[in-house]
Amino acid sequence: MKTSYVLHQEDLPRQWYNVLADLDRPLDPPLDPRTQEPLAPDALLALFPRACVEQEVATDRFVDIPEPVQAVYRRWRPTPLQRAANLERILGTPARIYFKYEGASPTGSHKTNTAVAQAYYNTIEGTKTLATETGAGQWGSALAFACGTFGLGCTVFMVRVSYDQKPYRRAMIRLFGAEIVPSPSDRTAAGRSFLEADPNCPGSLGIAISEAIEAAVRGDGTKYALGSVLNHVLLHQTVIGLETIRQLDLAGEWPDVVVGCVGGGSNFAGLVLPFFGEARAGRRAQPRFVAVEPRSCPTLTRGACRYDHGDTAKLTPLLKMHTLGADFVPPAIHAGGLRYHGMAPIVSRLVADGVVEPVAYDQVDVFQSAVLFAQAEGIVPAPETAHAVHAAVELARRCAERDEAKVILIGFSGHGHFDMGAYEAALAGTLQRVA
Amino acid sequence: MKTSYVLHQEDLPRQWYNVLADLDRPLDPPLDPRTQEPLAPDALLALFPRACVEQEVATDRFVDIPEPVQAVYRRWRPTPLQRAANLERILGTPARIYFKYEGASPTGSHKTNTAVAQAYYNTIEGTKTLATETGAGQWGSALAFACGTFGLGCTVFMVRVSYDQKPYRRAMIRLFGAEIVPSPSDRTAAGRSFLEADPNCPGSLGIAISEAIEAAVRGDGTKYALGSVLNHVLLHQTVIGLETIRQLDLAGEWPDVVVGCVGGGSNFAGLVLPFFGEARAGRRAQPRFVAVEPRSCPTLTRGACRYDHGDTAKLTPLLKMHTLGADFVPPAIHAGGLRYHGMAPIVSRLVADGVVEPVAYDQVDVFQSAVLFAQAEGIVPAPETAHAVHAAVELARRCAERDEAKVILIGFSGHGHFDMGAYEAALAGTLQRVA
Repeated sequence: MKTSYVLHQEDLPRQWYNVLADLDRPLDPPLDPRTQEPLAPDALLALFPRACVEQEVATDRFVDIPEPVQAVYRRWRPTPLQRAANLERILGTPARIYFKYEGASPTGSHKTNTAVAQAYYNTIEGTKTLATETGAGQWGSALAFACGTFGLGCTVFMVRVSYDQKPYRRAMIRLFGAEIVPSPSDRTAAGRSFLEADPNCPGSLGIAISEAIEAAVRGDGTKYALGSVLNHVLLHQTVIGLETIRQLDLAGEWPDVVVGCVGGGSNFAGLVLPFFGEARAGRRAQPRFVAVEPRSCPTLTRGACRYDHGDTAKLTPLLKMHTLGADFVPPAIHAGGLRYHGMAPIVSRLVADGVVEPVAYDQVDVFQSAVLFAQAEGIVPAPETAHAVHAAVELARRCAERDEAKVILIGFSGHGHFDMGAYEAALAGTLQRVA
Repeated sequence: MKTSYVLHQEDLPRQWYNVLADLDRPLDPPLDPRTQEPLAPDALLALFPRACVEQEVATDRFVDIPEPVQAVYRRWRPTPLQRAANLERILGTPARIYFKYEGASPTGSHKTNTAVAQAYYNTIEGTKTLATETGAGQWGSALAFACGTFGLGCTVFMVRVSYDQKPYRRAMIRLFGAEIVPSPSDRTAAGRSFLEADPNCPGSLGIAISEAIEAAVRGDGTKYALGSVLNHVLLHQTVIGLETIRQLDLAGEWPDVVVGCVGGGSNFAGLVLPFFGEARAGRRAQPRFVAVEPRSCPTLTRGACRYDHGDTAKLTPLLKMHTLGADFVPPAIHAGGLRYHGMAPIVSRLVADGVVEPVAYDQVDVFQSAVLFAQAEGIVPAPETAHAVHAAVELARRCAERDEAKVILIGFSGHGHFDMGAYEAALAGTLQRVA
């Protein structure tokens, strides 16, 4: 049986897919936090390069991937699409399970797709340094790699709990030439205020974003880069889904269900949106889209969809999105990359419209499926990815009960080589149920 | 510029290449340690399955890869061949540098190639459990994965210094379902004797082999698996070089130099032997073959080529090979997989015949090149692999000095995701020069 669907460099998509062209009605605009009035796109230029700001509101259905970005992508893209045939056998399911393996990237996750694009646009527009935050470290190492590739400086504010849990991820960020600062830190006014309130503050993505933004608006040639949530970030990630569609064509398959984990939403959207676009264009049936989040940070399943800040210090524009509140600090679960109070406005819209179905699981159940997957397929899922794997395992079990030969596609956002401590805890039975 | 040469599953080699068919004269036979007489091949049946024992002395030029082994290979093979174009640019060299990326395997190194084959042959011959040793943990995790795949039990004796340095590698071995024992241990008479002599003994591959062999000859359905050195192990690894030749054909290239690191010799031989075979058959020019070892464990550059034991307790048959002496305990360098006193008899023969050129480097220099490679290519070499990378960097610099546009091929045996502690030390400048 064929289990791997490989594309050549020549088959790399040359354009990203822009879902803004296919929404029924435009997204609600970002609001200025002081005036509550719609933000002029130019107001974002203090943070982001012009190309990314323009992509925030672009309405072309396809956007060219610059050739220098393609050249870096070609180091590891197209990534493999694989069939989890051994997992199917172990589950005794008639379902056919595929996974798109973004763990093949230099830093082991999908994050490099937008990191490279953002570093490129900043480089050609004269930025000297990029400041950013990172949760699990996936985004921080991706941006460190991308900045190193284009000769940009890079400062990474890393959520302290992850900084402590993941020394190897720290080392990788340093190896790629970036400076790394545990957050909250004394580098910024925002960081100092959180440390005053709680010297042992474990940090959160929301706090780290506040610090990185503060570092970026000092006017010293530093700009800010965000690893998820915004439209341009999701745009860059659509290379995942575009490749997957071509690979499924090679396999002669079309998914009934597409499953991905959601923190800020970029990995999920990067896989799902091109399938949505294909359905919108009337070319294919629309699959079910299942967004999987941790029960301890249930942004989509229990948050409200309203205007809120992206960060905890409330420096960012207000976005219309599912949110648990900008001051929500999630428990220190192993899936650090899913510990975010908000959600990409595009994903929030698709949830509100009933296109995307959210579901939440506890990490104890999630890791049981992750261990099963690793033993079956020999690939260790990142704790974030493990959420998608668990949802797929549950779906496949349901297919077994009902004898339904569905095609399940997993967004395998990254490998867990830097998260083996979590697996040690899972194998020892000491993993904590948190909600 | 094209930088990645991908083969499809359909292009996976269906046979291994057996160099024994192409040697000028037969290898010197293994000797019985008690009688010093040539060992009857059947004497090895206490340790290994019949198929592997037969492969030790097979003279067919090609050996079929069993279909169930191919099926497991297809989960990650063929592995990519990539051009290190960014590294070339940074070095300002006219050389063209390619690397065959075995880090794409489930456990991150070439070791799975023989682990899967050995687990398969043991399974069909009725073995219940495999016992083995591991240095850096690459082999232990590979065998754990392979045994898990075929439903075999697995006990891994892990060199204590690596056991302490690499908790994540330990976790991976456990994740794949194997039992793991730090060596020397109190499980075996051999282990107990080393602990009596030195309760803080850091262990070595030689000692761990003694323990695994002792565990295997108790007659309880346990057999032994070796991750390098023996002819059948090198045979299984030739899938690397066979794929690489096809990929270089796609690139329209043939190497002037092939570089690999050597511990026991299997990764090096797996890449190099098929090139040797092509030259022997008169189809292509013979490249230079450079075998890179740590200066602190200089088996090929400073050892003698003579009959010696493979293990420290002198339980194994005597092999004619380069050796530093069966009781040599190498310093605790980060490249745990290269800490072995002996060498594959096939590699030893090719060195003695002048076909393979050995060279030795210190880990401080090796890690400088590894950091350079990681920053250039976004892929972190394992400390073992870093030795080959360093030699290639040195060769490429020489090409720059002489304006020679040579083609350099690196055997990239594995990634360093479980060795980031070594990179932290390298970046902090605290890495020790050991010889």
